[in-house]
Amino acid sequence: MIDEKGILFVLSGPSGVGKGTVRERLFEVEEQLKYSISATTRNKRPGEVHGSDYYFKTHNEFEKMIENDELLEHAKYVDNYYGTPKDYVQSELDAGNDVFLEIEVQGALQVKENFSEGVFIFLFPPSLEELKKRIVNRGTESEELVQNRLNEAQKEIEMMHNYDYVVVNDNVDYAVQKIKSIIVSEHCKRERIEKQYNNIIKDDDFNVRTIN
Amino acid sequence: MIDEKGILFVLSGPSGVGKGTVRERLFEVEEQLKYSISATTRNKRPGEVHGSDYYFKTHNEFEKMIENDELLEHAKYVDNYYGTPKDYVQSELDAGNDVFLEIEVQGALQVKENFSEGVFIFLFPPSLEELKKRIVNRGTESEELVQNRLNEAQKEIEMMHNYDYVVVNDNVDYAVQKIKSIIVSEHCKRERIEKQYNNIIKDDDFNVRTIN
Repeated sequence: MIDEKGILFVLSGPSGVGKGTVRERLFEVEEQLKYSISATTRNKRPGEVHGSDYYFKTHNEFEKMIENDELLEHAKYVDNYYGTPKDYVQSELDAGNDVFLEIEVQGALQVKENFSEGVFIFLFPPSLEELKKRIVNRGTESEELVQNRLNEAQKEIEMMHNYDYVVVNDNVDYAVQKIKSIIVSEHCKRERIEKQYNNIIKDDDFNVRTIN
Repeated sequence: MIDEKGILFVLSGPSGVGKGTVRERLFEVEEQLKYSISATTRNKRPGEVHGSDYYFKTHNEFEKMIENDELLEHAKYVDNYYGTPKDYVQSELDAGNDVFLEIEVQGALQVKENFSEGVFIFLFPPSLEELKKRIVNRGTESEELVQNRLNEAQKEIEMMHNYDYVVVNDNVDYAVQKIKSIIVSEHCKRERIEKQYNNIIKDDDFNVRTIN
């Protein structure tokens, strides 16, 4: 069992569902989980540490990473790139650590294309009424803008069929408990560990002589 | 979510692995789980209650249940039949309750043929040395008998590829915790709940007008 690899868990869901809050609470109770560190071209803010908060890259460096297929996903917001370097994820998984990535729906779908062996968890709103209220209450925006966001949320929820699990965020602690259970349970999946067991169990082991 | 159905969990594994102990501990902490009640033709012992310990049946009644395909699995030990009636399991699942069945490997494989939507958990010995010791120490049996049991255990372990999960019984509490996680996690599986969500989410829900 010593050589068991880690698993990549990807938490996603529509805007307003509470992904960040759930992720923060999860990391308070799951200290061994590694948070996937993003790369970005935006400027470092006071107090931020390279390799801990972000990998800070120049535009040139980032575009080379894209060219060389070194990212699990990436996107451009305004003028800056954001993305998930494969390197960090892969080296943590190889070391037997689970990696956790919290990301919006489009990013999660990109990760799935590049790393289908990940476990994809969709955080679902407690009710659609609640999600709508949150979207509506975000600001004093026009009805048109609110409707755009609702349409966006609908499209994101329709992407649910790409995910392995659905967790309802009716209560942050319950949601965290469910994600913890998914992590434990995934490590018990037969196809993940069968090979190791097969290596351990040799025919010779089932011979009385080896006991005496 | 109200109409969510229960799930059948089947715990199995080689003789001597500790299935009974794990099941007992699990039921101390999971009060809502329903234990699958077996049918048998053996005589009722003092204190046993029909419909709670067993469904007591005559040989005739039992053979009719076999004929009518009313059992998830059955076997004959010495002169008596033992089996798992479909009726009880199905009515508990329909009522939204999870059902738990602890059974030897051959029985579990029969259940899988008849009810593939169940979740099959294989309890694995902490080490082969430990399993061998337990088999050897059961009595003062001949080397031949011990070898037969080891061969049997080997065949049972080779059946592992039919299972969904593998839980190592290195510590009863850890094993119970893992089974509890599997139960929670299975209820979060997207394919189990997607249909319900699709019914809940109608296009109309994503319209600003429905909020005002």
